[in-house]
Amino acid sequence: MNMRISTIASLLLLLATGSSLSADPLREQAQGLFEPIPSAVPALPGDPATPEKLALGRMLYFESRLSENSDISCAACHNIGMGGVGGPATSKGHSGELAGRNVLTVLNAVFNKSQFWDGRAADLKEQVVLGVMANPAAMLKTRGGPIIGDSAANNLTKQHIVERLKSIPSYVEAFKKAFPAESDPIVYDNIGKAIAVFEATLITPGAPFDLWLNGDDNALSQDQKAGLKIFIDKGCSNCHNGVNIGGGAFARFGVAQSPGPELLPSDDWGRFAVTKNVADKYVFKVPSLRNVELTAPYFHAGQTMDPRKAVAIMGASQLGQKLSDGEIDKIVAFLKSLTGRQPEVMLPILPPNAFPAP
Amino acid sequence: MNMRISTIASLLLLLATGSSLSADPLREQAQGLFEPIPSAVPALPGDPATPEKLALGRMLYFESRLSENSDISCAACHNIGMGGVGGPATSKGHSGELAGRNVLTVLNAVFNKSQFWDGRAADLKEQVVLGVMANPAAMLKTRGGPIIGDSAANNLTKQHIVERLKSIPSYVEAFKKAFPAESDPIVYDNIGKAIAVFEATLITPGAPFDLWLNGDDNALSQDQKAGLKIFIDKGCSNCHNGVNIGGGAFARFGVAQSPGPELLPSDDWGRFAVTKNVADKYVFKVPSLRNVELTAPYFHAGQTMDPRKAVAIMGASQLGQKLSDGEIDKIVAFLKSLTGRQPEVMLPILPPNAFPAP
Repeated sequence: MNMRISTIASLLLLLATGSSLSADPLREQAQGLFEPIPSAVPALPGDPATPEKLALGRMLYFESRLSENSDISCAACHNIGMGGVGGPATSKGHSGELAGRNVLTVLNAVFNKSQFWDGRAADLKEQVVLGVMANPAAMLKTRGGPIIGDSAANNLTKQHIVERLKSIPSYVEAFKKAFPAESDPIVYDNIGKAIAVFEATLITPGAPFDLWLNGDDNALSQDQKAGLKIFIDKGCSNCHNGVNIGGGAFARFGVAQSPGPELLPSDDWGRFAVTKNVADKYVFKVPSLRNVELTAPYFHAGQTMDPRKAVAIMGASQLGQKLSDGEIDKIVAFLKSLTGRQPEVMLPILPPNAFPAP
Repeated sequence: MNMRISTIASLLLLLATGSSLSADPLREQAQGLFEPIPSAVPALPGDPATPEKLALGRMLYFESRLSENSDISCAACHNIGMGGVGGPATSKGHSGELAGRNVLTVLNAVFNKSQFWDGRAADLKEQVVLGVMANPAAMLKTRGGPIIGDSAANNLTKQHIVERLKSIPSYVEAFKKAFPAESDPIVYDNIGKAIAVFEATLITPGAPFDLWLNGDDNALSQDQKAGLKIFIDKGCSNCHNGVNIGGGAFARFGVAQSPGPELLPSDDWGRFAVTKNVADKYVFKVPSLRNVELTAPYFHAGQTMDPRKAVAIMGASQLGQKLSDGEIDKIVAFLKSLTGRQPEVMLPILPPNAFPAP
């Protein structure tokens, strides 16, 4: 009797599991809209990864001497241990210098179709080359903002930084090893290539949503599944889709209803600065929602810490719909399922400035 | 014949090695003045290390939410990957906010007899409690300077920070595990205790000088040995001695001859701010010379990047002697032998601010 019951139980379990894998309509719909983060690091076209280039890129990512005043590194604003952003303050605008756009996460950035809020960089290398090397004040003031890559100040800075790296024996060695075919490897472009190779490793596979997408029914709670369904049915997934659940398209913020000047400052015209096309006024890149639990504050002006408020604003401004508290709670529960395994990175030991040999 | 020669050779080698271990007068003299960095992490009285407390301390060390504006962590100024200091900029004073004293390294700080340039903190925990938690501007303006631990602003900040940590579920968990005997473990003092336990692990054993001190003749070059002899004979080791080759005593900067206002700003009275004793005017802690290769710039005002210049200044201001270029080169060669194995630290994954549960 007992045996029979347990046998029946196992059979039922088997059936349940089997059927869920093949015929869960929500999963089938989701699989058509989203892709899991791959577990393997993606290769970068024209920038093959080698252990030496990766080691150099990790050093440069944490290297504050890449800024004119040697006081700000990639890691300063893109803290790998904090969701790949700088934490609340960088967008609080608590000091004039920290005004500008909200920091976008470096995690999974390799999967975005363009970089920066206005998509002015095509890939990670270009993002580094355009974004990293202005002098810190300029970089902070225009962080993610107007193109600074071509300004005279920035070119001067680029030259300083290359000279600075050339003056540090360990970097001369490291660049030789990372770019063995080049006679003069310490050039600006290679700084970008090495950092891009490191940044491509900063991916977060294994999110509950991805486990569920791959067939694990128990990876999501009922509320999270309900939230996903609302996310799709209401139209959030029209823009937030693909591997990064965003990062692939541009959209006008406030297409249905303006979110107001605090969230949409009138002096930041977004993608217009890149295309000069009037139709791109107040158009921004649809940000990835991967690890959104870790990347508050939200929106390009970074004025919202509360994910519930952020979801409500999106419903109104982009979809022209007032979402109910229950709908918002379920969507936020779903968003929490987008947090993947955070990359564990060993802090690099950086070389000292030139010191006389013994 | 060949055999005989090789036998004699080995005998001579044996003798040489044997004798160097027992009777190298320079080593015997050095062993009386200096101690190697131990390979084991020292225990902190009243603050026993546990894996849980160590994990919490590592998180808090990198936690910018310990500052009022959530924009500066211990690691921001004490970069473990750069000799435990912030690199050139922190002392360049390139912005008003960054004025103040030169950052002292966190590496081997556990072996100093007191903390800060004026020795106002007795140990690492007190250094954290006095130094960390003022609002960033105040912290930077007075970094290492006047005591800020008792100011109203700072007490307010302390309260904010405790409340902030209590609002982050993962920290509530982490403090419970780190201080299991306490009913309300998120208190200011425990922040200091956890960070101190982590900082005590940041030691750099294995420096060539330590290997030589322990009997390895080949760990130092001839120039480095000559430099050590000059370092002792000229009197540098009167203050720079012990495990940290400094960090154990106080001395008036310019006791023999003033180094001038750039290196000794007249508005920074040093230890006088702590003791109110006129004899302590312009008295500062003798800094450790461990890893000095990595900790430029030098002196409390941080106005010297060049180790040769720094040695020349010390000779004149503290010993009243003009060191020759040859003497300076040899001393600098010796100083390079004080660079030990740098600690390898995994960047902690920091918890997000509270996010609704699924």
